[in-house]
Amino acid sequence: MASHQIEALTQALARLPGLGPRSARRAVLHLMKKREGALEPLLAALQAVSETLSTCSTCGNVDTSDPCSICRDPRRDERLMCVVEEVADLWALDRSRLFPGRYHVLGGRLSALEGVRPEDLSIDKLVARVAAGGIDEVVLAMNATLEGQTTAHYLAERLEKFPIRLTQLAHGLPVGGELDYLDEGTLAQALRARRPVA
Amino acid sequence: MASHQIEALTQALARLPGLGPRSARRAVLHLMKKREGALEPLLAALQAVSETLSTCSTCGNVDTSDPCSICRDPRRDERLMCVVEEVADLWALDRSRLFPGRYHVLGGRLSALEGVRPEDLSIDKLVARVAAGGIDEVVLAMNATLEGQTTAHYLAERLEKFPIRLTQLAHGLPVGGELDYLDEGTLAQALRARRPVA
Repeated sequence: MASHQIEALTQALARLPGLGPRSARRAVLHLMKKREGALEPLLAALQAVSETLSTCSTCGNVDTSDPCSICRDPRRDERLMCVVEEVADLWALDRSRLFPGRYHVLGGRLSALEGVRPEDLSIDKLVARVAAGGIDEVVLAMNATLEGQTTAHYLAERLEKFPIRLTQLAHGLPVGGELDYLDEGTLAQALRARRPVA
Repeated sequence: MASHQIEALTQALARLPGLGPRSARRAVLHLMKKREGALEPLLAALQAVSETLSTCSTCGNVDTSDPCSICRDPRRDERLMCVVEEVADLWALDRSRLFPGRYHVLGGRLSALEGVRPEDLSIDKLVARVAAGGIDEVVLAMNATLEGQTTAHYLAERLEKFPIRLTQLAHGLPVGGELDYLDEGTLAQALRARRPVA
């Protein structure tokens, strides 16, 4: 019924996270009806990103320049480094604008199940960056999952010989979390890391 | 934090129906991580549609050819015509593969509130297509809204002088509809249009 070009566009959109076949069809219809206002801007934006896309050779962030805009930013505190599993984690943290330093993206997490070993991740590069000096603190910002924490332990071992502060994100109650609805693991973490009332 | 090219792509995606800022960001990240598998195919598909996009001068469908693939399809019964408000309605009906005829897209519905008059819609073209002959039945497939039904009444008046069967979609209980949860309007329609048990 629809032409093969439209079908191809629908399928390409449907493969994006958050879109399914139904919403992809709606998006295509929207693009076709709003040619000047939606289709052409999206096309131009995609083209621009496609032409400039690169992975930062320093930290592993994906950006449209190498080094990435974070590694090039002189206002960033280069003595502070935050290690994350994925680029998505970097973006999530950076959106909060709470971390003034730089990042290092591992490109995954250690996993016996999926066969991900230390050499599959950007760990040697991380150790080399720390070994090069000039860094005061490394924040291990792995996910609070079994594999994330295993990775954090492994990194801690690899980095303990350097004269840096090694920290990790606090675990405990999320904002708005109600005890009644939280899992036992979270409650146990929150209790174990309890702090004196100020 | 992100480059202006990435920001522009995120905003272009966020304007699609079904995507917001958050899911657009996730989609951009996906595109950047899967350059060969996601970004390039989407770019190529958009380019192909952008280059061939056209509105069918016969029925008003948007497609990548004029006349559209439905109007050109010789297997379609040209004596059967279904009139819809929007292209989205045509696509929805055609996906069901239940209608073997051709379509006519009005491009909207009559609306006193929004100031949409008959001359703003593709009604003269519809009348001309019917007047040209060769059509046995016209199905008025307007939405079951006040404005949709007003439009259907107006079209019925304009088309009653032609020797055609004029029909409209049945109104009643939707599949899976429970009486307890349906609005009174639907119940009234279903009761009024009740049929003998076969």
